[in-house]
Amino acid sequence: MSSLVRYRILPWRRSFSQSVRLREIKSISELPNRTLPQYRETNNHGLLSLQWPSPPRNVLLTKKNNTPAITDSLVEYANHIHSTYPSMNLILEPHAAEEVHSQLAFPVFTTTEPASTTSPTTVSDKTDLISTLGGDGTILHASSLFAHTRSVPPILTFGMGTLGFLGEWKFKEYKRAFREVYMSGASDAYASTTSPLTSTSPSPPYPTTPSYSAIRGKAMGKTRNARILFRNRLRVGVFSPTGTRINTPTPTTTGDTYALNEVIVHRGSSPHLKIISVYVNGRFLTEAVADGMIISSPTGSTAYSLSSGGSIVHPLVPSLLLTPICPRSLSFRPLVLPANTPITLRLSEKNRGREVEVSIDGVRISSGVGVGMEVRVLGEEMRDRLSGEWCGGVPSIVRGVVGTEEKEEDHWVGGLNALLKFNYPFGEEA
Amino acid sequence: MSSLVRYRILPWRRSFSQSVRLREIKSISELPNRTLPQYRETNNHGLLSLQWPSPPRNVLLTKKNNTPAITDSLVEYANHIHSTYPSMNLILEPHAAEEVHSQLAFPVFTTTEPASTTSPTTVSDKTDLISTLGGDGTILHASSLFAHTRSVPPILTFGMGTLGFLGEWKFKEYKRAFREVYMSGASDAYASTTSPLTSTSPSPPYPTTPSYSAIRGKAMGKTRNARILFRNRLRVGVFSPTGTRINTPTPTTTGDTYALNEVIVHRGSSPHLKIISVYVNGRFLTEAVADGMIISSPTGSTAYSLSSGGSIVHPLVPSLLLTPICPRSLSFRPLVLPANTPITLRLSEKNRGREVEVSIDGVRISSGVGVGMEVRVLGEEMRDRLSGEWCGGVPSIVRGVVGTEEKEEDHWVGGLNALLKFNYPFGEEA
Amino acid sequence: MSSLVRYRILPWRRSFSQSVRLREIKSISELPNRTLPQYRETNNHGLLSLQWPSPPRNVLLTKKNNTPAITDSLVEYANHIHSTYPSMNLILEPHAAEEVHSQLAFPVFTTTEPASTTSPTTVSDKTDLISTLGGDGTILHASSLFAHTRSVPPILTFGMGTLGFLGEWKFKEYKRAFREVYMSGASDAYASTTSPLTSTSPSPPYPTTPSYSAIRGKAMGKTRNARILFRNRLRVGVFSPTGTRINTPTPTTTGDTYALNEVIVHRGSSPHLKIISVYVNGRFLTEAVADGMIISSPTGSTAYSLSSGGSIVHPLVPSLLLTPICPRSLSFRPLVLPANTPITLRLSEKNRGREVEVSIDGVRISSGVGVGMEVRVLGEEMRDRLSGEWCGGVPSIVRGVVGTEEKEEDHWVGGLNALLKFNYPFGEEA
Amino acid sequence: MSSLVRYRILPWRRSFSQSVRLREIKSISELPNRTLPQYRETNNHGLLSLQWPSPPRNVLLTKKNNTPAITDSLVEYANHIHSTYPSMNLILEPHAAEEVHSQLAFPVFTTTEPASTTSPTTVSDKTDLISTLGGDGTILHASSLFAHTRSVPPILTFGMGTLGFLGEWKFKEYKRAFREVYMSGASDAYASTTSPLTSTSPSPPYPTTPSYSAIRGKAMGKTRNARILFRNRLRVGVFSPTGTRINTPTPTTTGDTYALNEVIVHRGSSPHLKIISVYVNGRFLTEAVADGMIISSPTGSTAYSLSSGGSIVHPLVPSLLLTPICPRSLSFRPLVLPANTPITLRLSEKNRGREVEVSIDGVRISSGVGVGMEVRVLGEEMRDRLSGEWCGGVPSIVRGVVGTEEKEEDHWVGGLNALLKFNYPFGEEA
Ligand SMILES: NC(=O)C1=CN([C@@H]2O[C@H](COP(=O)(O)OP(=O)(O)OC[C@H]3O[C@@H](n4cnc5c(N)ncnc54)[C@H](O)[C@@H]3O)[C@@H](O)[C@H]2O)C=CC1
Ligand SMILES: NC(=O)C1=CN([C@@H]2O[C@H](COP(=O)(O)OP(=O)(O)OC[C@H]3O[C@@H](n4cnc5c(N)ncnc54)[C@H](O)[C@@H]3O)[C@@H](O)[C@H]2O)C=CC1
Ligand SMILES: NC(=O)C1=CN([C@@H]2O[C@H](COP(=O)(O)OP(=O)(O)OC[C@H]3O[C@@H](n4cnc5c(N)ncnc54)[C@H](O)[C@@H]3O)[C@@H](O)[C@H]2O)C=CC1
Ligand SMILES: NC(=O)C1=CN([C@@H]2O[C@H](COP(=O)(O)OP(=O)(O)OC[C@H]3O[C@@H](n4cnc5c(N)ncnc54)[C@H](O)[C@@H]3O)[C@@H](O)[C@H]2O)C=CC1
Repeated sequence: MSSLVRYRILPWRRSFSQSVRLREIKSISELPNRTLPQYRETNNHGLLSLQWPSPPRNVLLTKKNNTPAITDSLVEYANHIHSTYPSMNLILEPHAAEEVHSQLAFPVFTTTEPASTTSPTTVSDKTDLISTLGGDGTILHASSLFAHTRSVPPILTFGMGTLGFLGEWKFKEYKRAFREVYMSGASDAYASTTSPLTSTSPSPPYPTTPSYSAIRGKAMGKTRNARILFRNRLRVGVFSPTGTRINTPTPTTTGDTYALNEVIVHRGSSPHLKIISVYVNGRFLTEAVADGMIISSPTGSTAYSLSSGGSIVHPLVPSLLLTPICPRSLSFRPLVLPANTPITLRLSEKNRGREVEVSIDGVRISSGVGVGMEVRVLGEEMRDRLSGEWCGGVPSIVRGVVGTEEKEEDHWVGGLNALLKFNYPFGEEA
Repeated sequence: MSSLVRYRILPWRRSFSQSVRLREIKSISELPNRTLPQYRETNNHGLLSLQWPSPPRNVLLTKKNNTPAITDSLVEYANHIHSTYPSMNLILEPHAAEEVHSQLAFPVFTTTEPASTTSPTTVSDKTDLISTLGGDGTILHASSLFAHTRSVPPILTFGMGTLGFLGEWKFKEYKRAFREVYMSGASDAYASTTSPLTSTSPSPPYPTTPSYSAIRGKAMGKTRNARILFRNRLRVGVFSPTGTRINTPTPTTTGDTYALNEVIVHRGSSPHLKIISVYVNGRFLTEAVADGMIISSPTGSTAYSLSSGGSIVHPLVPSLLLTPICPRSLSFRPLVLPANTPITLRLSEKNRGREVEVSIDGVRISSGVGVGMEVRVLGEEMRDRLSGEWCGGVPSIVRGVVGTEEKEEDHWVGGLNALLKFNYPFGEEA
Repeated sequence: MSSLVRYRILPWRRSFSQSVRLREIKSISELPNRTLPQYRETNNHGLLSLQWPSPPRNVLLTKKNNTPAITDSLVEYANHIHSTYPSMNLILEPHAAEEVHSQLAFPVFTTTEPASTTSPTTVSDKTDLISTLGGDGTILHASSLFAHTRSVPPILTFGMGTLGFLGEWKFKEYKRAFREVYMSGASDAYASTTSPLTSTSPSPPYPTTPSYSAIRGKAMGKTRNARILFRNRLRVGVFSPTGTRINTPTPTTTGDTYALNEVIVHRGSSPHLKIISVYVNGRFLTEAVADGMIISSPTGSTAYSLSSGGSIVHPLVPSLLLTPICPRSLSFRPLVLPANTPITLRLSEKNRGREVEVSIDGVRISSGVGVGMEVRVLGEEMRDRLSGEWCGGVPSIVRGVVGTEEKEEDHWVGGLNALLKFNYPFGEEA
Repeated sequence: MSSLVRYRILPWRRSFSQSVRLREIKSISELPNRTLPQYRETNNHGLLSLQWPSPPRNVLLTKKNNTPAITDSLVEYANHIHSTYPSMNLILEPHAAEEVHSQLAFPVFTTTEPASTTSPTTVSDKTDLISTLGGDGTILHASSLFAHTRSVPPILTFGMGTLGFLGEWKFKEYKRAFREVYMSGASDAYASTTSPLTSTSPSPPYPTTPSYSAIRGKAMGKTRNARILFRNRLRVGVFSPTGTRINTPTPTTTGDTYALNEVIVHRGSSPHLKIISVYVNGRFLTEAVADGMIISSPTGSTAYSLSSGGSIVHPLVPSLLLTPICPRSLSFRPLVLPANTPITLRLSEKNRGREVEVSIDGVRISSGVGVGMEVRVLGEEMRDRLSGEWCGGVPSIVRGVVGTEEKEEDHWVGGLNALLKFNYPFGEEA
């Protein structure tokens, strides 16, 4: 993410003006504003049901880099979306846009500046739906594009051969998966209406609000809605000894960074132990002498925290994990705390050596960190205080649909067994 | 608990009729019915505030057995309650009643049958407040008296020299502690009223409803309410291979048993591994080959589960812990699941040997268990579905009062450090 | 083992006298005395080379019970040995002798009393070589027949479908394996001699000492000797509070019991913690409050100790493992001590409840154990103090032969990967 | 160590020539060559007895830096040695010599170049005995001065308030401790001789070989010898992908580096997992995906390996520990292997990112490391192959003397309890 090629607007404009008007790269500022979905509770063990008020229009596609097979899949996927859902607009990250736009017979949208610097707000202003092609790293990256956004769009993730615990779908399912998400919440009444609006609609550039009634034969039944697993994030603030906020990637971003997995404080390249004071609810809990400390979300419980000896915590347990990394103590057991517990890690002045690593979801904060620094964390609130509406977390689209007769899969339990080899039995293979 | 001396009503009646009318033992059936408190949310990290609609009248005192010093404390405590709060009635367990009633100048109440067999409903029908003198074992025992009761009275616990992680108060604080609980929720208005009702009131044995206005000078201010930590219990059902329920201690009790710490399935005295199938949400999760399995509440996370390698989970994290005991696998990491997840342990037919131990909160289920048996667990619901009122869990009275200026202690964090020696630092003592 | 059918000598005598002289069961007292092999050091990472002074004559075959397929294999194996090595005598345990002798066209030998009670010395007086058909349990059982014998014969183990970490060979290899062991140490010189002694030799039932020179064409070259892994055992003494030795299965056995895996002290069927004092080198080390304690050999490090969180220790590391079972402490890390460290576990008088489990290699000591009891352990000495000869441990015949050109397998490393799924990689199966 | 002030020879020469001849700093090249002690086996659980053929003459004193109180102690200690054992010569590290020589009324010796670069061979050529003032870090540093020396002089360590697990003695014991070491092995016969050689001997500069007979009244009895614990080191070679050796701190040093605690390969400041192939005995064992890997000596088992979940291994168990750091696997349990097992860690080409940390005893190898690199480790041999004499390891002088009547302390067990808080009991402090 940090190595994003800097977006150069001119060449693309040029390609635009030359000939292939359709292969151009446009700015997302031209897109209609974001459509916010709603989430209804179901009696399916904490999963929610996705409800679009009107069909989504802008989908952000992200992919793993430097993997030609995945780039090919992206092109195939983009073509399918464009041809089947012509009113959809595709947003790509700048380097991906540059890489594939010439293979697409229609325009794509991108940020005029690298997504991670000046215009993340823009991406989050325009994106109705996210879809990723890659492993967990790609999902973490997509999530990081919304690291300063309270309300993340629903995310449809395709594992691409690479191991992924967070990924839900196989790429070969992309048609069905996209349709389910697109249609989720569409009422039958509208769907059966036969007004052929599709052809007439696009008095350019884009219809203000498309309607499901325009989508003939695409109804899926009232109850066949996409299932959503809300993944709690952490709200992370990193502060210098003088109290200045450090975790501000761009001049325009302010406030806390949302992390999907975890934030860590670590000795980094220093070969010596770090001394970290831990405060819980504003009170001193303990002084860790260790390689480092992890504050993890339940989602992150199967990532770094697991490697450091933490428990596996289901993503629907509203909690924070405090897991030490190689503590110089026999009695530092990992803790699981309520999600609304404020936790602070303070890099004690006792440390010799100034160096320290602070990383959020595997991305290192490169400057400003040092002795006296504080990392302050709180689980994000999942509902709006006033309306009670769901508005936090990363709404992850889970395989299977609400109310379906077919045996629903439980991705999380499945992942424990298939990916993490949980309680893998002793004995020789058959 | 299982060895409770069988209550003989006759001798007590006799002692009654003889002379010392006040030292008699009466049946709890004579007591007024239970007063149910309410619990209000506070902004104190998940703690609630206790609100009596009218002063509590019946307090159940339990104590550790075979410890003379604690028996003495019980007598002192009982005398204090009786003299300071004359409208309070004291309930004791049969063996304790028999042991101490001759040292008390007033009647005590007890169940006419051992609390754990035919009349637990009676105890729970009459008890407004529980108070324990002893360690964690005493609290577990007191809780077991309400193991078939949905709504447990608030519990005020005194550690008595013995190590206790669940205990909150030191015995020397008993006057202040009892007063805080007794007064909790009393409004200033009433308290300032000076009608001297105390003396006149008790004509028919017990006043229907005492009033705080009768308690001169005892007001504590509207906000100085006792703080409550709701400890989630497990709902445990044990079923024979034919589906018959086994966990029914008495003919009159039905339904699930509530556990405060955990339920375990264990090889017991058989020197061989057990094979236990684990189902989560109705689906097969894994087959444990192990000494046993623990399903624990967050409260139990510092008990057996901790010894077996489980994480420490704060009692306010709504969750269940699934922790293996000595699993024959390198990859069976403890799991933390949402509190509303149904979990089943099934003792596989593959087991050689019939013997197995099933224990709830350290008390073994002595008969009926064996191969094919199932243990079904669910976290209890904490609120009534209709009213939304708090009604599950064990309402534990936490040290410190709501809204006090003085620095509140956090018992849980304190206990980690002081009792569990959490992250105890290396190095020689000063 | 405890359920061995009591051997009745009469029926067998009867079957003898009746007709099928060859299918009779004879007493091992008729057998020539044991031939003791020597062990030479090799430069193969601690493995030794087996050297018979003259061919072995008496082989003890043990098998897993109640498994017809294994019984069939035993018959096949016995027939092969008898026909290919006619001077070999087969010893079976009483119940196995009774079960299979009618299927064999030659006599078998057995103890006149159950092997585990009065005559283990006899078995160890006569056995040149042990061979087991079954899993680790079968090997542990065979080893227990020599639990009071300083010098255990070499043991050739065949896994039989059941998972076995200690087992070395697959049954289909039995011809090659047995030949390697039988010939191990035979010199080429003798082997090339062509004196046809085989036919003439057996006039008095058994030749005093057979010679390799009699075995035409069976030479394997000087260096193709069977490789031996010496598995250290524990010397275990269990003493009552009055100092009486408890671990004496029969009146005739005295002294320590040798354990291959471990000895454990455990709460057994009591649902309460045990308090166990641990002494190392005669000094107090710590007081364990736990389900129990394990003292394990390196061989046992992959058994119960592993399940309890112990490290995996290679069988050639001369050491003892002290591993707690579910200790009520955050800071009780498993210890690895030098093999010659005396360790004592003492069941403290502080324990409430009298019950306790003491088990050696998975077999419970059924009587005499209780509060005040001591378990005293020391790693056995592996060499004779005077001669320096190897004489302790269980000499396990390892797959592959010394000096072979073919890539030798390392059974231990192989077992970690294939059986224990050591560091099993994350990710979906191909 | 890396920050040693570069030794400037000129100023010191100058101070020499100016006036205070006695406070000068001399080159160790002027010292007599090293006296090699012998080690005799005792029946004290693996400890050896130190035997000087003639009194030691050259003692290397090292101390913790930047700690004035320790510098003062060094001066006191040096003065004591000089006045009580006038034939002893004191060697200091250059920066310490510069710091304290003006406070001493006699010359000290030092290397003409920083000890760690060109002249470690010189230090090891001259040092009879090492003595350290500081914590474990100071001992590790002293040991590193002999990291290319097969035969390390005995080391007498004083903890200085700082926590130290390797340290043996308290500073207030320095007189008795030094005397015990100095006299160790002196025979009574000589000691009782009264030839007053001390005064006549020093035909300057230094007597070729002093004799215990010269030390009147200092005999301690034949058996009161200093006890030695031999701490096994690791032989570590670090090789670039092309096979070039990297671990050569100076042009003049060659061959393996001896490590007292461990060698680690670690992700360092890269926030991503490392992929490390592990070979044991030349065969592939496993591919670690982890923060890193530790290969530790038993001495190091209480250092980094402990923090990473390794077992505690007694220093006399001849073994190597293979402990992963935060492995991305549920089933990577630490391994304990025989000391003579060759282990190789190979930094796989699969790694993305080039950065990696390789550290030996907490000192980072700063250059040349990267993908394709190999770390090859073997436990050092503890005895000379020909003579059978002890010649490897770090001979650490253990508190208490051989054969003393007084209760001997077991430092290791003591350290577990006092320093590591091993199995620290639950419950409130008295
Ligand atoms: N997470 C961890 O536990 C880490 C441990 N280390 C250890 O630190 C050592 C280097 O020491 P310093 O330069 O002083 O670094 P440091 O300042 O990071 O302190 C290391 C700590 O380990 C202790 N220690 C060292 N060797 C020990 C031993 N054999 N047994 C018990 N405790 C021991 C020291 O007393 C000190 O408390 C390395 O050899 C490595 O073992 C280094 C980095 C991280
Ligand atoms: N190996 C182990 O750790 C074992 C633990 N237990 C625990 O003992 C409990 C029964 O208690 P007792 O009848 O007194 O048996 P006990 O006499 O075996 O003592 C159990 C110990 O656990 C402590 N304890 C109980 N509940 C706790 C909690 N929630 N948090 C922290 N510490 C707690 C008690 O203070 C006491 O020290 C069971 O519910 C089970 O959790 C029972 C057997 C073995
Ligand atoms: N929770 C646990 O892990 C328990 C383990 N055991 C172990 O079982 C042994 C007795 O065996 P069985 O009578 O067959 O009992 P069992 O039927 O309980 O099976 C024990 C299991 O351990 C395996 N095993 C035995 N020794 C082993 C070794 N040295 N390395 C690796 N795996 C080994 C066997 O293959 C079998 O899978 C005991 O010596 C003890 O080590 C016994 C009770 C509980
Ligand atoms: N020793 C360890 O276990 C380390 C773990 N990490 C983890 O890596 C993450 C960053 O990922 P990358 O940039 O791809 O780094 P990476 O290339 O180091 O790979 C991290 C691995 O973790 C997996 N992963 C990520 N999130 C996961 C989750 N929530 N549950 C299960 N598996 C998950 C990925 O599939 C990948 O295999 C960090 O958030 C941190 O959790 C980072 C450093 C060390």
